[in-house]
Amino acid sequence: MIMVKRIIALLTDFGTEDGYVGAMKGKILSIAPETDIVDISHEIKPFNIRQAAFCLTNCYAHFPGKTIFIVVVDPGVGTARKGLMIQTANHFFIGPDNGVFSLIYEKEAFNSFEILVDILPWKVAATFHGRDVFSPLGALLATGKGINRFLSATKKHISFVKPIRQVEKKRFHIPVVHIDHFGNVILNFQRKDYSKMKTKKFGITVDDHKFGKIHNTFGEVSRGEFLLMWDSSDYLQIARNGGSAAKDLGISTDSEVGLIL
Amino acid sequence: MIMVKRIIALLTDFGTEDGYVGAMKGKILSIAPETDIVDISHEIKPFNIRQAAFCLTNCYAHFPGKTIFIVVVDPGVGTARKGLMIQTANHFFIGPDNGVFSLIYEKEAFNSFEILVDILPWKVAATFHGRDVFSPLGALLATGKGINRFLSATKKHISFVKPIRQVEKKRFHIPVVHIDHFGNVILNFQRKDYSKMKTKKFGITVDDHKFGKIHNTFGEVSRGEFLLMWDSSDYLQIARNGGSAAKDLGISTDSEVGLIL
Amino acid sequence: MIMVKRIIALLTDFGTEDGYVGAMKGKILSIAPETDIVDISHEIKPFNIRQAAFCLTNCYAHFPGKTIFIVVVDPGVGTARKGLMIQTANHFFIGPDNGVFSLIYEKEAFNSFEILVDILPWKVAATFHGRDVFSPLGALLATGKGINRFLSATKKHISFVKPIRQVEKKRFHIPVVHIDHFGNVILNFQRKDYSKMKTKKFGITVDDHKFGKIHNTFGEVSRGEFLLMWDSSDYLQIARNGGSAAKDLGISTDSEVGLIL
Repeated sequence: MIMVKRIIALLTDFGTEDGYVGAMKGKILSIAPETDIVDISHEIKPFNIRQAAFCLTNCYAHFPGKTIFIVVVDPGVGTARKGLMIQTANHFFIGPDNGVFSLIYEKEAFNSFEILVDILPWKVAATFHGRDVFSPLGALLATGKGINRFLSATKKHISFVKPIRQVEKKRFHIPVVHIDHFGNVILNFQRKDYSKMKTKKFGITVDDHKFGKIHNTFGEVSRGEFLLMWDSSDYLQIARNGGSAAKDLGISTDSEVGLIL
Repeated sequence: MIMVKRIIALLTDFGTEDGYVGAMKGKILSIAPETDIVDISHEIKPFNIRQAAFCLTNCYAHFPGKTIFIVVVDPGVGTARKGLMIQTANHFFIGPDNGVFSLIYEKEAFNSFEILVDILPWKVAATFHGRDVFSPLGALLATGKGINRFLSATKKHISFVKPIRQVEKKRFHIPVVHIDHFGNVILNFQRKDYSKMKTKKFGITVDDHKFGKIHNTFGEVSRGEFLLMWDSSDYLQIARNGGSAAKDLGISTDSEVGLIL
Repeated sequence: MIMVKRIIALLTDFGTEDGYVGAMKGKILSIAPETDIVDISHEIKPFNIRQAAFCLTNCYAHFPGKTIFIVVVDPGVGTARKGLMIQTANHFFIGPDNGVFSLIYEKEAFNSFEILVDILPWKVAATFHGRDVFSPLGALLATGKGINRFLSATKKHISFVKPIRQVEKKRFHIPVVHIDHFGNVILNFQRKDYSKMKTKKFGITVDDHKFGKIHNTFGEVSRGEFLLMWDSSDYLQIARNGGSAAKDLGISTDSEVGLIL
């Protein structure tokens, strides 16, 4: 029998200096001592759900099968927001129902389960579900013990991703899903959407700017120029060589850009 | 025979970018290759012993039995300050004698040992006991080898925690033990102290402010209001919903607040 | 047969919040599940090759034999810069050929190999060799599978270290190799160079300042005073007790200081 060590990957906005991440790690290792804990990040900006969702989408697919991702960016802890366990073909995701798994919903087929916090047979602090709900459930899952009794299938979950919408016959609006810390504007338009398009002639418009070509690297345009590129998760992004596209084009996460076919 | 992997948890103020934490990890793994190294934090503010002590107290109890905590916030390295190994019922703590274990002393029964640095049979850099004293001793302990020959029982150790003091029959002063990065004021008054009090009627006073009730969550008071809460380590704290209690009440770590029974 | 877990130590300037480090870790664990991943740092300042080189030199020698270091500070990714695998007596180093291994070249005997990126039998994103070239090769190496078919021996590699140069019979110029974040000025003069010197009488000169003595700790000089010390990697450094030597002496990484024998 080959024992494969289970991996629990952690993603939070806690920083490390208060010991909250330490408490999660201690709790996980107490329940599942053979687990391999992997830090993705604890430096997500406080309560920045979109940043956490993007961080997750940039890495989850590279992890081994059965990896358990515990994601705790949780401004609503202590309120009635639900806790979720999302199961995809290869992975498990545990965390609050606040949109932090939005991009998983876009990219994967999945089943979702609400965590029945009230029936957990241990003490749960209202303000620290990372330590008292998500970590112990993830650790139990890692040990191979069933956690189904603490779960209830659900079809509802929150997403911050807005769909592309048609405004005229050949005109669409594409919502922004994220602005990364370089100011790159990531659009809700994936490489797989592009593959399905019959015409490869298209234009992305932002005010007076129009982009018709998708570049491979920043180096293909001059310094200061704007460009379209696929980001490392295969979303289309508007970037600026040596600058912040978002700032210089006046784009926020609430913006939409034009798509003309 | 079941081999349980030993855990060494690291807590420092080194940051990571100079490679000092890397050197500690390398040294530990060279001596004890089967050890599981867990990062608690390396982002403690330089020389901030109270922050490190609080970070530790927020997490240590959740770690498995026999976990070895190596704590290196060490402004006095290179001076005559002692090194310590503290043994509690479940855990081991290794680091400098500068108060960084103050809250362990408050919460646990323990034995303490001075590290006999001068007799260590390897080279020790005067300015890097994290790498040359605490890490190798922690690693030797993790391998199950005795380190007693490098230790001497001691009863003296430094603590920054000042006791509650009685000023009148029913009036006490409670010292502040920490101000966290949200400005929450943590008092030297634990939930276990409160449990022992015969009367549950009491008042905490700060200048003209008087608090008589202990809340469960921030959400129980309006934005801008001050409140009393138990922190995640069961210390009583003064907080402000949406603000910094410490700043707005003019409280520092040298302050005391009133307790009226 | 004793199986020794292989260690892969990671050093990057990615920060963690974008998920790029997570992607590297996921990829490594997918290829080499038994690997022990150790974070050295992901907080190197963006593109700061010298800082990464110094971070590495401060820690690599303490790691167990056969540790694989993957170093990704890679401003030239997407250009024609080479990828390297450096093999020393005890360790392996994988990363871009941009000088990030300069100090390894100074301290160790080594063989160097160019990575033949074009023949890798998997998809490689032009902008993310950390995930698609260096991590999978490091992981393959960790599993014990040969990676020689992807390597070609090379003698050329980039170094930022400039040699000491003689300007008069008993006068030399020593280049600066690094300025650390405390402002300590690290010189290209190692303890082993000093050991080989016949006379121990020497002077280091910076404008009007002259240093003739090497101190052991900051505590040996008064606050505000400049001093010479060995750094923790045995390079000679100019420091200032309670200040920034680099700033206060006007020294940059392009500077040289005088050495008079």
